[in-house]
Amino acid sequence: MPFLESKMRAVRKLLVLTELLFVSTISLAFSSPNDAYPTGYGDEPGSCVGASDDLRPLRREVYEDGQIFDITHQFNPNTPMGDSDEGIGQFLTLLSSMKNGSDYNFSELRLGVHAGTHVDAPGHMYEEYFDAGFDVDSLDLRVLNGPALLVDVPRDKNLTADAMQSLHIPKGVKRVLFRTLNTDRRLMWKKAFDTSYVGFMKDGAQWLVDNTDIKLVGIDYLSVAAFDDLLPAHHVFLKSREIILVEGLKLDDIEAGLYTVHCLPLRLLGAEGSPIRCILIK
Amino acid sequence: MPFLESKMRAVRKLLVLTELLFVSTISLAFSSPNDAYPTGYGDEPGSCVGASDDLRPLRREVYEDGQIFDITHQFNPNTPMGDSDEGIGQFLTLLSSMKNGSDYNFSELRLGVHAGTHVDAPGHMYEEYFDAGFDVDSLDLRVLNGPALLVDVPRDKNLTADAMQSLHIPKGVKRVLFRTLNTDRRLMWKKAFDTSYVGFMKDGAQWLVDNTDIKLVGIDYLSVAAFDDLLPAHHVFLKSREIILVEGLKLDDIEAGLYTVHCLPLRLLGAEGSPIRCILIK
Repeated sequence: MPFLESKMRAVRKLLVLTELLFVSTISLAFSSPNDAYPTGYGDEPGSCVGASDDLRPLRREVYEDGQIFDITHQFNPNTPMGDSDEGIGQFLTLLSSMKNGSDYNFSELRLGVHAGTHVDAPGHMYEEYFDAGFDVDSLDLRVLNGPALLVDVPRDKNLTADAMQSLHIPKGVKRVLFRTLNTDRRLMWKKAFDTSYVGFMKDGAQWLVDNTDIKLVGIDYLSVAAFDDLLPAHHVFLKSREIILVEGLKLDDIEAGLYTVHCLPLRLLGAEGSPIRCILIK
Repeated sequence: MPFLESKMRAVRKLLVLTELLFVSTISLAFSSPNDAYPTGYGDEPGSCVGASDDLRPLRREVYEDGQIFDITHQFNPNTPMGDSDEGIGQFLTLLSSMKNGSDYNFSELRLGVHAGTHVDAPGHMYEEYFDAGFDVDSLDLRVLNGPALLVDVPRDKNLTADAMQSLHIPKGVKRVLFRTLNTDRRLMWKKAFDTSYVGFMKDGAQWLVDNTDIKLVGIDYLSVAAFDDLLPAHHVFLKSREIILVEGLKLDDIEAGLYTVHCLPLRLLGAEGSPIRCILIK
């Protein structure tokens, strides 16, 4: 099916319209300066001006005054992982190296699927779902992409039913990213797993399931569930196999409010979790 | 910053508007039935009706008549990887298993970063860029997200300057996914690396760089570059560090035309490539 001239003219029109709509929506919707949203890995724009000329990469987490926000933590040796004091350690091995005469560099990745920013599939905590194949490849892309609310959980409360009720999350809202004390404490920047993180108690999870339409729950540490309710709160969320849990999100320095979220896990057959890249578009 | 009632009322309004716009845009824009776009992994909707009730996951690659298309190949032991006859083999290890008394399942992923559907960073084939840190974490999310054209390359031509010229890609188009004979031959479903794939010759790559505004090049086998021009064609694309190469895309059974692409690699510090999840939204 070669592309015909006439098709291309129609496509060109559509394209111009789409790009215009895209750009104007973005610039109207958001006006905060980059400075308000510094990155967390020591690669702030100010420290890297002219980076390309100096052969230094510019690591960005906020694009063009809030067009795109990267809400994913970088994987590096200090990236935390549940039950580990040492973080993920060496997660890359250079199998073919140009320094050793290879034509190209080629690395192998080795990573716990619940390290850093990641997604849980139903098989993570339900053995019958694991056996039946409810892996990350079976997660619903319609849930992982669409309008999402970033909300602040009152810092003086745990993620209980009471705290959830106080947020007044409207019916119809399908995706909520919960920012908590974990963000203030920068727990995701500490390589040792910290069991004092804030997470859902069983009753908080149950309240959401019973009283809202939420299908995507995002949280700012490695587990949606508080350490004391690790199993019960996970079980409440995962039981229906309709709720997707995204853990370890980087939610600092972004205004609470409505965005479009895109959270894309790897298509790993048989895996009960996956590292994920998540972005917000304003 | 607890969420206030007044804020929530405003957000609720916005949300309803956004969801309405989202849904109506999608349903207007596309009307093809699911049947036209079967999946490739033996999990067609027809074979899995009532899947949830039978405790069988429904693997989807097309959502609601073309709302979202998954253009990513699944990682399974037969997923192909460059220079291997055996595919990726065992890529998951269950470190903690509920069958063995653990409270949850927890797997480790082990994967070549250029296996299956993946992205190349400038450090893949330029040693100075590798040393300077131009890894997948430095790739521009603005390039990886936005309007994209899916085009069919004439099947009787290699990806030469001549073939590229014949496509009449308009100026302003930043992202193009090239569907080739590789898709017809279903090369990505063969676990052994097949050097007879179609890819860019050096002059085809150079023509695109010189005559178009393309910043994202997508292709339907493991390498954008033909085997005979493996290094030169990669070098042409990667030299400016502005063009992102997405390889191993699953482009079968989707109409050529304009979509919004979201391609999200992992944030792997120091990696010259990354497995990636890519979707098209109509």
